[in-house]
Amino acid sequence: MTDTTMHDHRFETAYPNSRKVYVDGPHGLRVPMREISLSGGEPPLRVYDTSGPPGADVHQGLDPLRQPWILERPVESVESGPANAGGPVGLRRPVYRGTGPLTQLAYARRGETTPEMEFIALREGIETEVVRIEVAKGRAIIPANINHPELEPMIIGRAFHVKINANIGNSIVSSSIEEEVEKLRWATLWGADTVMDLSTGAQIHETRQWIIRNSPVPIGTVPIYQALEKVGGVAEDLTWEVYRETLIEQAEQGVDYFTVHAGVLLRYIPLTAQRVTGIVSRGGSIMAKWCLAHHQENFLYTRFAEICEIMAAYDVSFSLGDGLRPGSIADANDEAQFAELKTQGELNRIAWDQDVQVMNEGPGHIPMHLIKENMEKQLEWCGEAPFYTLGPLTTDIAPGYDHITSAIGAAMIGWYGTAMLCYVTPKEHLGLPNRDDVKAGVIAYRIAAHAADLAKGHPRAQAWDDAISKARFEFRWQDQFNLSLDPVTALAYHDETLPAEGAKVAHFCSMCGPKFCSMKISQDVREYAAAERERTQGLQDKAEEFRKVGSELYVPVP
Amino acid sequence: MTDTTMHDHRFETAYPNSRKVYVDGPHGLRVPMREISLSGGEPPLRVYDTSGPPGADVHQGLDPLRQPWILERPVESVESGPANAGGPVGLRRPVYRGTGPLTQLAYARRGETTPEMEFIALREGIETEVVRIEVAKGRAIIPANINHPELEPMIIGRAFHVKINANIGNSIVSSSIEEEVEKLRWATLWGADTVMDLSTGAQIHETRQWIIRNSPVPIGTVPIYQALEKVGGVAEDLTWEVYRETLIEQAEQGVDYFTVHAGVLLRYIPLTAQRVTGIVSRGGSIMAKWCLAHHQENFLYTRFAEICEIMAAYDVSFSLGDGLRPGSIADANDEAQFAELKTQGELNRIAWDQDVQVMNEGPGHIPMHLIKENMEKQLEWCGEAPFYTLGPLTTDIAPGYDHITSAIGAAMIGWYGTAMLCYVTPKEHLGLPNRDDVKAGVIAYRIAAHAADLAKGHPRAQAWDDAISKARFEFRWQDQFNLSLDPVTALAYHDETLPAEGAKVAHFCSMCGPKFCSMKISQDVREYAAAERERTQGLQDKAEEFRKVGSELYVPVP
Repeated sequence: MTDTTMHDHRFETAYPNSRKVYVDGPHGLRVPMREISLSGGEPPLRVYDTSGPPGADVHQGLDPLRQPWILERPVESVESGPANAGGPVGLRRPVYRGTGPLTQLAYARRGETTPEMEFIALREGIETEVVRIEVAKGRAIIPANINHPELEPMIIGRAFHVKINANIGNSIVSSSIEEEVEKLRWATLWGADTVMDLSTGAQIHETRQWIIRNSPVPIGTVPIYQALEKVGGVAEDLTWEVYRETLIEQAEQGVDYFTVHAGVLLRYIPLTAQRVTGIVSRGGSIMAKWCLAHHQENFLYTRFAEICEIMAAYDVSFSLGDGLRPGSIADANDEAQFAELKTQGELNRIAWDQDVQVMNEGPGHIPMHLIKENMEKQLEWCGEAPFYTLGPLTTDIAPGYDHITSAIGAAMIGWYGTAMLCYVTPKEHLGLPNRDDVKAGVIAYRIAAHAADLAKGHPRAQAWDDAISKARFEFRWQDQFNLSLDPVTALAYHDETLPAEGAKVAHFCSMCGPKFCSMKISQDVREYAAAERERTQGLQDKAEEFRKVGSELYVPVP
Repeated sequence: MTDTTMHDHRFETAYPNSRKVYVDGPHGLRVPMREISLSGGEPPLRVYDTSGPPGADVHQGLDPLRQPWILERPVESVESGPANAGGPVGLRRPVYRGTGPLTQLAYARRGETTPEMEFIALREGIETEVVRIEVAKGRAIIPANINHPELEPMIIGRAFHVKINANIGNSIVSSSIEEEVEKLRWATLWGADTVMDLSTGAQIHETRQWIIRNSPVPIGTVPIYQALEKVGGVAEDLTWEVYRETLIEQAEQGVDYFTVHAGVLLRYIPLTAQRVTGIVSRGGSIMAKWCLAHHQENFLYTRFAEICEIMAAYDVSFSLGDGLRPGSIADANDEAQFAELKTQGELNRIAWDQDVQVMNEGPGHIPMHLIKENMEKQLEWCGEAPFYTLGPLTTDIAPGYDHITSAIGAAMIGWYGTAMLCYVTPKEHLGLPNRDDVKAGVIAYRIAAHAADLAKGHPRAQAWDDAISKARFEFRWQDQFNLSLDPVTALAYHDETLPAEGAKVAHFCSMCGPKFCSMKISQDVREYAAAERERTQGLQDKAEEFRKVGSELYVPVP
């Protein structure tokens, strides 16, 4: 990784006139925010920030800010096993395992507030006690493995900001570790709240080591991918033992949430045979193949309690996979999909029994009129656990633009109550996303999440819109650029037609030109209306005065 | 305009493996469709096509296919006035004016079916009588000026495919006539159902001449822009006479629908004074300024019946402007906006009294939870006339990406019943769209419109999604590209990681690589399930046989 590629990730380059600030909290907490400076006497605007600490050396990883909090919990050191194998020495860390209840859910249920909860309360602008209660009731999760001390705590739940996830990861035919770490930093710079490493290549362990040690956000994985690598890619050869070993390896490395396709039951598989697109989830299809080959129930289901036990020891959260999600409009909301969703609900309860945090993955491809039903059924069947959907894509006909087909569905389901939206990039269905695709996906999903926050009435959401609209109306062009999700692009688009510096203070733009600018005319109207009000007020005052002194006293001046 | 730029507009380049076909109808009607050839024994798919006749010379304009139909109506020739001034000789046309009722609404109400209605019925796959009834009831319009014989008839109404409009037009600081004609052809190539020419520069008349003569789709304008040009850009100097003259000039040139801001009443203007973004409609702010300057009611309102009389004589449709639409999330659904909408409803009835077709323009910037109210109020107050909205944008914070912020709102309001969606390009709020922006806007809105068609259950919508999803599942890569809204982009994205020709027939892609492909595994599952069914069936058959012959006869073979 050269200095040149690093350069691109600079916060200052992406966000001119913004600076990173830290809100101080109890126990020395420092909660990151991005503060946007404005002109015209406007106060600066602080917004949620996922970009992580600046200036870290990727060979050393980020500072382990949660380390002291974790060491106060019932943990023991683990003999360094495969978790620290491979990668530079600078990325090796001590490894811990719980010796007693230590998940955020366990603390919340006991009425104890963790530093993570306090951090989140400041970050979200919501009372700490609300955070604790939402976690205690299973309505929100704080994915925070005790072996990922570098992360800045965040929460996934429908009482909070809607979150977005960015998928990265190499496959056998494409990309390197460097590229993946670059994508991680790039994704969090633009606003990814969590990142899933979906690597399937040979260097799967080492790639993950680099990613976790450099990640300020929770990292999710699908452990079955690595388990499958270990058995040479033959699904039938998967065993509980290989899977278990993989879970522990990844938990000790610091993965914050696991996608587990435990709801793909043997009896649901034939329900997919008549679909237009069968099974489209990788994990789902792997488990389906295993089940059929062995004529046995999915071992992720039969061993679910054991999986919970492992995850509880590291506070890894579940992202219960939707292996039978629809892969086309034709297959939306069918029997296979909803059968699995019901099973997810059953599994939620088992996880909760062991104090393991859990969210449920959702689809996929859904036409608009069927989206709400997904949310309603998930809330009902899954005990209000957070919902985490992939899009959904609202049509199948636009490969190359699926960040848009899915941003529509994502915004809607976010409004209906989905807590986290898994992004879709323009490369979906076509290839692995590159850096530009990652950015396009993250921005489209920041839009969807923010639109959902607005529609849900999140107290902090509207202030941002108001600030940028006020800047727009007052022709504070630089403020408008700086307040946008992607300031540099906004500036570049403006400058395509009006590059002169003077145009940044002009009371018009190239859309209408100076004579036709509605904003300008509208300001004239405002002045006019103010004068009008004054005049009317003047007349009313006079009339009032007149009534007071008695109308008979009034003698017109000639 | 050089041959090189023309080349880009070729249908064959944009849509590989598609060809233009014509469905024959009564009276020699030939309705254009795009037919996509598929492999694997799949039947070709025909989709709605707006790209217009191929190979026309822009200096001569398109063939006047509607001319014979129009000449059978009560029309008289008009002495060629300003309508034919300027532009090449090859673009001059005879000009007609009605001498009796000749609007599509007039015919529909009399129970008469026009060739335009028959054309539309074939184009939409809907009964002609349904088309006639929807027009007769004012629930749909067929914008088709008798002086725009080149257009291929289309309909705007909620019983039909959701339509999209693309705005083009130069301003004083940017672009040329050539660029605008190029944008027109480009926009219709990618799927614009109508195009609005919002030019405000000096060559406003000539630009429009080029556009109309070369347009296979209805052209809309905002006549007040040209009227303002005529009075030197001083809103206060506008008069009914100048406006009237402009209406006639444009009607005789062939404009199919006029945006008229007749609902901006004097008493509504002060309602905007406390808004975050005041008045953002250009036409709305021009009229507001005029009203305040003169202390008089908007002349578009007081002269509305006279405007209707002019429009009836050429069958120009109304697009009643929403001059007080909100320009920010903060201003959505406020008193000013809804006051004007109510007045739009009052004006609809006046238009209908004179057999003039009318649709209503709608916002703008609306958070998701307030979108539905717009549709409901419009249906109620405006007598179910077609609604035509700009977006709406669901957040203000993403300039540079407003095709996405607004595609979300557009898809939703299209599902709720909006008949036409006015596109928003990535340049919105920042500058005039170039060719790439026009395409980005059109594609985003084709997605929104199609997602709405799916959600509304339009009979022809789902077949397209099913065809592409089937191709995807069967690894017919070329079919998948050719069935997408933008085949060339889909192909290019795929080839970024897997450029080899062999990859186009491979049973995997670069997202997962060969070993992990869920689609591939899923096909295995399908074969497995089929075998399983057969086996089970075999057992059942045996059991059945057993029951038939009597169980006592059964003797196990040792």
